[in-house]
Amino acid sequence: MPTLSVRIDFEAGDRIGPGKIQLLENIAAYGSISAGARAMNMSYKRAWDLVEELNRILGKPVVSARTGGKRGGGAELTALGHSVVIRFRAVERAAAAAAEQHLASLQSEREDQTRE
Amino acid sequence: MPTLSVRIDFEAGDRIGPGKIQLLENIAAYGSISAGARAMNMSYKRAWDLVEELNRILGKPVVSARTGGKRGGGAELTALGHSVVIRFRAVERAAAAAAEQHLASLQSEREDQTRE
Repeated sequence: MPTLSVRIDFEAGDRIGPGKIQLLENIAAYGSISAGARAMNMSYKRAWDLVEELNRILGKPVVSARTGGKRGGGAELTALGHSVVIRFRAVERAAAAAAEQHLASLQSEREDQTRE
Repeated sequence: MPTLSVRIDFEAGDRIGPGKIQLLENIAAYGSISAGARAMNMSYKRAWDLVEELNRILGKPVVSARTGGKRGGGAELTALGHSVVIRFRAVERAAAAAAEQHLASLQSEREDQTRE
């Protein structure tokens, strides 16, 4: 069954898609930009560029330095960063649910074609 | 206000997105692959590659030679080609409607951030 990918397009060609969102989720899960990037085979430089692009698109930082704790260092999502992840995943779910019937029809048409 | 882009993902990395769909619409509107491609600044070679990719993904041709008529030659969409366009645009509309509220919330959060 085919699935849907969504991307949010802003002015001037700026976009937020599944890659940037997964990076934010990984930064939150691993507690640092470098570990989050590594978990998805992304270079640290590329991860930083994407985080800075998100900061610019959204007007405020999505990631901040994590202070204190046993190990110090590290990074965490800001409230805005968390919110963007939540909203993107909500958009994805809503779009997938809305498209489900159309995707099923497309798939059955495809199967009809290959069966003929 | 941000907008949504959607893409349909099939097995093995095959995908159908707005570019391929616009090409099919242009072929239908201009009555040939070359004129349809030209209308979107796409090379004839690239257009043919995309049409063949669509044929492969869907299991049957999406474009056929147009026979008869005053000018002969030319191309038109098959029933499958038309159906894929209709379904993709329906998926797009359904997804955009479902995402609308989330996109508005994201935008107002963005405006709050840049106003602070």
